[in-house]
Amino acid sequence: MLICKVVKPLVSTNRIPDFEHKHLQVVLDGSTKKVAVDAVGCVPGDWVICVGSSAAREAAGSKSYPSDLTIVGIIDHWEPDPPKPPAAPPATPPAPAPAPGGA
Amino acid sequence: MLICKVVKPLVSTNRIPDFEHKHLQVVLDGSTKKVAVDAVGCVPGDWVICVGSSAAREAAGSKSYPSDLTIVGIIDHWEPDPPKPPAAPPATPPAPAPAPGGA
Amino acid sequence: MLICKVVKPLVSTNRIPDFEHKHLQVVLDGSTKKVAVDAVGCVPGDWVICVGSSAAREAAGSKSYPSDLTIVGIIDHWEPDPPKPPAAPPATPPAPAPAPGGA
Amino acid sequence: MLICKVVKPLVSTNRIPDFEHKHLQVVLDGSTKKVAVDAVGCVPGDWVICVGSSAAREAAGSKSYPSDLTIVGIIDHWEPDPPKPPAAPPATPPAPAPAPGGA
Amino acid sequence: MLICKVVKPLVSTNRIPDFEHKHLQVVLDGSTKKVAVDAVGCVPGDWVICVGSSAAREAAGSKSYPSDLTIVGIIDHWEPDPPKPPAAPPATPPAPAPAPGGA
Repeated sequence: MLICKVVKPLVSTNRIPDFEHKHLQVVLDGSTKKVAVDAVGCVPGDWVICVGSSAAREAAGSKSYPSDLTIVGIIDHWEPDPPKPPAAPPATPPAPAPAPGGA
Repeated sequence: MLICKVVKPLVSTNRIPDFEHKHLQVVLDGSTKKVAVDAVGCVPGDWVICVGSSAAREAAGSKSYPSDLTIVGIIDHWEPDPPKPPAAPPATPPAPAPAPGGA
Repeated sequence: MLICKVVKPLVSTNRIPDFEHKHLQVVLDGSTKKVAVDAVGCVPGDWVICVGSSAAREAAGSKSYPSDLTIVGIIDHWEPDPPKPPAAPPATPPAPAPAPGGA
Repeated sequence: MLICKVVKPLVSTNRIPDFEHKHLQVVLDGSTKKVAVDAVGCVPGDWVICVGSSAAREAAGSKSYPSDLTIVGIIDHWEPDPPKPPAAPPATPPAPAPAPGGA
Repeated sequence: MLICKVVKPLVSTNRIPDFEHKHLQVVLDGSTKKVAVDAVGCVPGDWVICVGSSAAREAAGSKSYPSDLTIVGIIDHWEPDPPKPPAAPPATPPAPAPAPGGA
């Protein structure tokens, strides 16, 4: 299962009927936004457990539910990893010794 | 589910019979082009929800439909993330200062 | 479904019996080589649609066929994206004026 | 199957009922944290085999169990690969050649 | 299917019973080590075809076998791609041409 952060609900008026009666949430999986079916009732900011693969179908309520990502639990406490620093930012160069040209 | 942008329809004259009666769309998943079965009737430029895994089959109409990616909804409003800047383009270098004074 | 390019047939003498009667093709998915079961009769150089996940089984002929990637269609016309340039080659700087006139 | 390292148990009070009676573990797959259902009884620090896809369901006990990642074995001895060095630190540049003639 | 290289057998004394009677092999998928169920009888150094997804179960012998990666064939001849060079070592710049004629 993935550990994701809930971003916000997603509105899709034109969608297939099988999909209609459940809330969809935009979730952040690492730095990628995905859409998950909400089976627990979460709110933006929650850290949640998302199940994928064929298990997402039954987790969303029935074997024929068309989900490949379903929120199945809210994590009580989660400390995300600190974001990785951008690729080797050249450390601030040492301040240039006395400013150019006698200034 | 993935959030993709519809690029254009895909024409494939020589394909397996099970596939034949549905529209195929080229979609952009991040920067990767994939092919999805269109179950909602979308047009190029639409931001859509694509379901993968085994759920893509039933979402396309039946348990035996050979899809692993099906468009199941059109997103009402979607603001894509700004593209990431290319790997640290060296910002315009500061105008060369006069060479360090006589150094 | 993935958009792949057919590279060449793959020969595997020692393989499981369930596999035996279909052609296997090496395909290029981006820059990664994979093996797909050929359900349409393609040749090296063709751009094809490959279906994965559980749908690859029925697409290959039966529910119990052990495929996770099956070629299900040949794309009529496909213009691959140009290969990405290596990380931001500093474009050739504009030729310094003087304008060609004086050359 | 994936080779993962067990990090710690995960507590999720609000989760779907189908999930409730098994231990969940945070595992490290490369540098990504995921959640797996524990079917063998492992402890933090163990190197384990995790099965995904639809096989994760039955491996967790039943066809309808909503898991897409299940710990199915503890590896007796595992020597992880050394971490990769950061991207190719530019080897010490060759000593600067004398500047092009008088420029 | 993936093209992998067999590294060595994997020993896991504490594993789920459903798993017990088949050999497990550590395989190299690109630069990532994974575990696959051996359905053909391969040895370290072999290049093999590995099937994933739900097809891995039946390929391993039965619909309920808990595998998500099964070795289904040994490739007769395989020439791996040469390893990629580290990220674009800046080729030695061409010797600076004499500045464009007198410009």
